[in-house]
Amino acid sequence: MSPRLGSYDEVAETVAAKAREFASRRRAIEELQLGLASGRILARPLHADRDLPPFDRSTRDGYACRAAEAAAHQSLRIVGSIRAGEAHASRGPLPRGAAWEIMTGAPVPEGADAVVMLEHVEVAGGNIRLAESRGVEAGENIVPRGAEARRGDEVLFPGTRLAPPQIALAASCGYAAVPVFARPRVAILTTGDELVPVEAPPGPAQIRNSNAPMLAALVTAAGGKPVLLPKAADDAEALDMAIGRAEKADLFVVSGGVSAGKFDLVEEALARAGAIFHFTGARIQPGKPAVFGELLRGAAEDDPPGGNRRIQPFFGLPGNPVSSAATFLLFVTPVLAALAGASEPGPRFGLARLARDCKGKADLTRFVPAHCTFGGTAGELPQVAAIPTQGSGDLAAFSRANCFLVVPEGVLKLHADEVVRILLF
Amino acid sequence: MSPRLGSYDEVAETVAAKAREFASRRRAIEELQLGLASGRILARPLHADRDLPPFDRSTRDGYACRAAEAAAHQSLRIVGSIRAGEAHASRGPLPRGAAWEIMTGAPVPEGADAVVMLEHVEVAGGNIRLAESRGVEAGENIVPRGAEARRGDEVLFPGTRLAPPQIALAASCGYAAVPVFARPRVAILTTGDELVPVEAPPGPAQIRNSNAPMLAALVTAAGGKPVLLPKAADDAEALDMAIGRAEKADLFVVSGGVSAGKFDLVEEALARAGAIFHFTGARIQPGKPAVFGELLRGAAEDDPPGGNRRIQPFFGLPGNPVSSAATFLLFVTPVLAALAGASEPGPRFGLARLARDCKGKADLTRFVPAHCTFGGTAGELPQVAAIPTQGSGDLAAFSRANCFLVVPEGVLKLHADEVVRILLF
Repeated sequence: MSPRLGSYDEVAETVAAKAREFASRRRAIEELQLGLASGRILARPLHADRDLPPFDRSTRDGYACRAAEAAAHQSLRIVGSIRAGEAHASRGPLPRGAAWEIMTGAPVPEGADAVVMLEHVEVAGGNIRLAESRGVEAGENIVPRGAEARRGDEVLFPGTRLAPPQIALAASCGYAAVPVFARPRVAILTTGDELVPVEAPPGPAQIRNSNAPMLAALVTAAGGKPVLLPKAADDAEALDMAIGRAEKADLFVVSGGVSAGKFDLVEEALARAGAIFHFTGARIQPGKPAVFGELLRGAAEDDPPGGNRRIQPFFGLPGNPVSSAATFLLFVTPVLAALAGASEPGPRFGLARLARDCKGKADLTRFVPAHCTFGGTAGELPQVAAIPTQGSGDLAAFSRANCFLVVPEGVLKLHADEVVRILLF
Repeated sequence: MSPRLGSYDEVAETVAAKAREFASRRRAIEELQLGLASGRILARPLHADRDLPPFDRSTRDGYACRAAEAAAHQSLRIVGSIRAGEAHASRGPLPRGAAWEIMTGAPVPEGADAVVMLEHVEVAGGNIRLAESRGVEAGENIVPRGAEARRGDEVLFPGTRLAPPQIALAASCGYAAVPVFARPRVAILTTGDELVPVEAPPGPAQIRNSNAPMLAALVTAAGGKPVLLPKAADDAEALDMAIGRAEKADLFVVSGGVSAGKFDLVEEALARAGAIFHFTGARIQPGKPAVFGELLRGAAEDDPPGGNRRIQPFFGLPGNPVSSAATFLLFVTPVLAALAGASEPGPRFGLARLARDCKGKADLTRFVPAHCTFGGTAGELPQVAAIPTQGSGDLAAFSRANCFLVVPEGVLKLHADEVVRILLF
């Protein structure tokens, strides 16, 4: 009898706990030009090298003035003009009863405490007056110097994934290059006597190895560097040799050979290599036979000194492609993100409105290949529907999916129009 | 007075309609190795070169048998064994009263019409018997040959974005390389006298150009090839010259210089270049002054013959970085996706549970920088919360965001615990 399998939540917590351990590992750091750093993980804090904004900054096109004077609807003489990029220090402070024309992004002249919007004033004969229907308060349309960040502040923290907003912030602080963590090397081993490489003509009982390129794409998308090992046959010797070849990797992912069948030898080979297993299955569909554990490995040559990467986490994923993809997203992604140094490990779930009823199971959490609209106009909620499929081997159906619909354990039916969870690719 | 501005839904529909026009353009095609094709857009249909599955395929480890015999709980003699990758044709059909041991992925022997699961049988003395508590029906645990796709079927269509499932399907059909559309060239022009390059020390009223690298990252993420033009000063001559430099691009994105101020000259320069404007603002915040239009351009030298790319769509995005990013995701992404040949143009919206109340406006749709948890355990819904900010220039706040929270026009308050829409990065 197999041991009691954990629920999805239980094994996800096992994975998350291990991911937290890996998060503190030392890792190699490389310096990348900002234009090449998108999607990478920041390795050191970035600091503001000046106050942000560096001056009291107008957020509008309009007139810099004293709020008390403008709010009283006084006529204010236009005595100057300042546009973004111009320094104003040499022009002296704003006189009483006066205003300066000012553009968005320009420094507010000394003496002014508000900017009234262009659209809110009447202009006549070199004077402005705030429209009767409008008011203004001190501070309006001005971001004070240093309100966003102070010089010396840490504005981005190690572990931050550099998406477009962070790229912009790094640039605004003068970082033309940024320190990022080296991407973890992920050894990918596909197993199965039935597999032939994509270039080879398959025999009548053979199929092409679709998991190798799919897992490589998943690894790349999750921030790792895929290392595709030669496919291993379903025999002990081939598997032992292949496990040896994965020695140097930061993470080891094997697909195939982990279910209950006689020829599923991967677990045995891992055990021979000294594996500790954190789990050898979970109450999920697909992916029930998924395996997570760790191997004791020699340190890699290019490890940083003092690196403790002798523990190599591994995953055994079921060989069916839909099972491989689902378990990769659920379990491998968070471990890979942690090894990469990312502070938000995933997986990423969203919500969507269910288009059609979908069945669940009493004793399993289901992850059903599904298509979500993700959009349309503002009035329309994202809709998700399961894709009719022949099962976990059905790539033709899976290729019409852009997410997995989650049916939690014990929920026998999700009903149309419910808001449901989806696992994002 | 400015013309009446369209609502978000109205301008989004204007953009979508134009995107549909661009979808039918001819574009250059390149052949890429499958390992390099992730994220690219398929240019020609891919066909199944054999039935999928290519044989009646077992989806379980167990015993291939006749359902009628097994369901009657007869004792069935084990007369053979077949694993994945083995052809069975030479072994003749399954005799009456017998079963074959079979592994997941193996071809079902002729004569068998079901596979009973390993876990559901009692094995004794070279015989199996289905457990009393179990039944089995014809067809169980078998995917018939061709059930997923027939030889010659189109399994992937032009316009499909190649994510991991599509990569796997292409591999399973023998495509070691795939035809994809060339990525559209996107000219990026940042404008503003206040901007200095990231490498240069900014003067007291200057700031660094953070939009150039941010927009380049956004273009790359949306499937385009960014071409960064030199920054243009806020004067007519510099802008005219810069617009000329964007001649060859498939799409032209300008940031800055589109609001109501005196020195905002971009719209005038575009008008001098013969621009037609589809809209020059929208009832959104941020991004109200965003501009969308098209220029008549000479054909690019490397256009495919008959290409009609003389119409160059352009966007003018407000210069504040948060405004630039929001309007890029809302409007540029779908046009860029259409130019790239993608059949699902975006933008991508999701849903999440609101963590804290958030204010809206009577006359604007708000897109508020926000952070979504996207995960946690199965019981926990993704939660989103607006990020406190000093406004659309506040990159320090924006860099803590991973989505925009959508507050539709006319909704004065979104309440905590509501399920709300988010714009995904």
